[in-house]
Amino acid sequence: MTRIALDAMGGDFAPETPIEGAVLALQSLPASHDIVLVGRSADIETALSLHDVPEGRLRVVDAPDVIDMAEKPLQAIRGKRKSSIRIGLEMVKVGEADAFVSGGNTGAMMAGSTLVLGLHPGVDRPAIGALFPTVSQPVLLLDAGANVDCTPRELRGFARLGSVYARDVLQRPQPSVGLLNIGDEAEKGNEAVRGAHALLAEDPGLRFVGNVEGRDIINGDCDVVVCDGFVGNVVLKFYESVARLFGGLLEQEVSAELLQTPGMQRVFKILDYTEYGGAPLLGVRGVSIICHGSSPARAIANAIAVAAQSVDSQVSQHIAAKMAEDGAVP
Amino acid sequence: MTRIALDAMGGDFAPETPIEGAVLALQSLPASHDIVLVGRSADIETALSLHDVPEGRLRVVDAPDVIDMAEKPLQAIRGKRKSSIRIGLEMVKVGEADAFVSGGNTGAMMAGSTLVLGLHPGVDRPAIGALFPTVSQPVLLLDAGANVDCTPRELRGFARLGSVYARDVLQRPQPSVGLLNIGDEAEKGNEAVRGAHALLAEDPGLRFVGNVEGRDIINGDCDVVVCDGFVGNVVLKFYESVARLFGGLLEQEVSAELLQTPGMQRVFKILDYTEYGGAPLLGVRGVSIICHGSSPARAIANAIAVAAQSVDSQVSQHIAAKMAEDGAVP
Repeated sequence: MTRIALDAMGGDFAPETPIEGAVLALQSLPASHDIVLVGRSADIETALSLHDVPEGRLRVVDAPDVIDMAEKPLQAIRGKRKSSIRIGLEMVKVGEADAFVSGGNTGAMMAGSTLVLGLHPGVDRPAIGALFPTVSQPVLLLDAGANVDCTPRELRGFARLGSVYARDVLQRPQPSVGLLNIGDEAEKGNEAVRGAHALLAEDPGLRFVGNVEGRDIINGDCDVVVCDGFVGNVVLKFYESVARLFGGLLEQEVSAELLQTPGMQRVFKILDYTEYGGAPLLGVRGVSIICHGSSPARAIANAIAVAAQSVDSQVSQHIAAKMAEDGAVP
Repeated sequence: MTRIALDAMGGDFAPETPIEGAVLALQSLPASHDIVLVGRSADIETALSLHDVPEGRLRVVDAPDVIDMAEKPLQAIRGKRKSSIRIGLEMVKVGEADAFVSGGNTGAMMAGSTLVLGLHPGVDRPAIGALFPTVSQPVLLLDAGANVDCTPRELRGFARLGSVYARDVLQRPQPSVGLLNIGDEAEKGNEAVRGAHALLAEDPGLRFVGNVEGRDIINGDCDVVVCDGFVGNVVLKFYESVARLFGGLLEQEVSAELLQTPGMQRVFKILDYTEYGGAPLLGVRGVSIICHGSSPARAIANAIAVAAQSVDSQVSQHIAAKMAEDGAVP
């Protein structure tokens, strides 16, 4: 039995949207997978009463505290021990749940996951993995925002984390890894990136394909793109705005009707980040999936599916093994 | 009389494409503006013979050396004193030309401009300004690739350079400046950006509007967006690839014919970076405009127009004045 805990209080439209997402997810999750809703039980029960829930597949765990989107992450996680984020992560820690998914305060999810679950030995810093749509298969970019200043060693750590995730969850048997840079040559880039290039090139456990530039990210030539969390976060958010710009331009220059045609809907579905579910926080002991605060129900359902795949493929255990093995490599 | 010097040997299809660009530019430049083609005169004359050139508007200056795209910039600029880039920049320095435009080796253009023209007093580092298309007016992002590791003071310098350029060349009377970051709050971001936030906030000569995130760049809310050259270069190149991705998706999911409709052509024209001409290298004494190596003739013509506007608006002189004035501010 796989149990995915979901933060029912996380996101801009909680608890309604998370609960709708959970109900939606249950339609495609195998019968062996249940969902645990964590949050204020009275609020959850009220919202749940509007849905037809399959017997025995949804459980509620009470968490009377809520961490607001604007709260200071570390302070909130330390202070609100009965919050949905803290309780959900503790359930993963003690084995009462196999994964935790939240569209709540991102900083609190990062701080909480690190604090409550801890890091696998050999992991310097956890990283957020984000999927970028391309014409072919999506690309995993990390770090998408957990770490702003990174050392070469930390960037190598992201490459290792991303490789295991790409293999286990994205089904890329031998994932290729590119280093985001501003030119092809090894000596290009800032200090951290130049150092990382050398470390990646000599790592026998990685299929390192060298530098990739901004224009290469969505070529789909690479399975994993490594960068620090500042650059990654800027590019990720920029990409999310581009589909909106494109829609705006089409409406202005072509016609609003065009946007409604099935072909155009498919284009926007490919570009729609909510299709790709949540972003895993890689490197922590256990499965922790971070969603946008603005996630609609479908995005939450997709994030739950990503959590289920992560649990079923044992990605966290494989990361632990990889890090132990690489620890032996100088 | 304004004289724009153009590197006839710069870019992937030189000298044909630069020359085609020059001929195209002359169709819309005022009669008071001439173009000087710098490069191997025999090659230039051959390529020129295919065009109808208006009497007395195009002059050729011989430069027997060519700097290749792959050459080490500093070495090439120092070693090849008779190269088109070096000679073109020297013409600007001694007043034989008012601006220099090149689609050649970008590194050599940066190194050469700094070395030959020098920096205005008070400028720590020159910055490349790139225009990003939006639904409304384009946004100036800088630095787009000249400096990979930047101090807070250097980032403030970019804000000052960009403000003058936005006012003089983009006609934004009181340009607003945003700092590219990963969140709204002043304490967000990496060390350099946090430091820059403080400096920008207390600069009386800037209309600083605070942090902007990746998703805000192309909202068009800001006239100038400031970041280091690593982030700027990644985002710029990423943006350039997105129009290609859209085209690919539309062809795949909708129809190739749709791309040929006038409305869709307008959309792609807005997204097409070649419409925005070259990128100015700001902070050097004089006007130096950098083009993509792959620039088609229309992009070269647009870059020449940008050079002409820069000369006519005296942006370089205004930058010198601004820097002298701000130098007095602690």
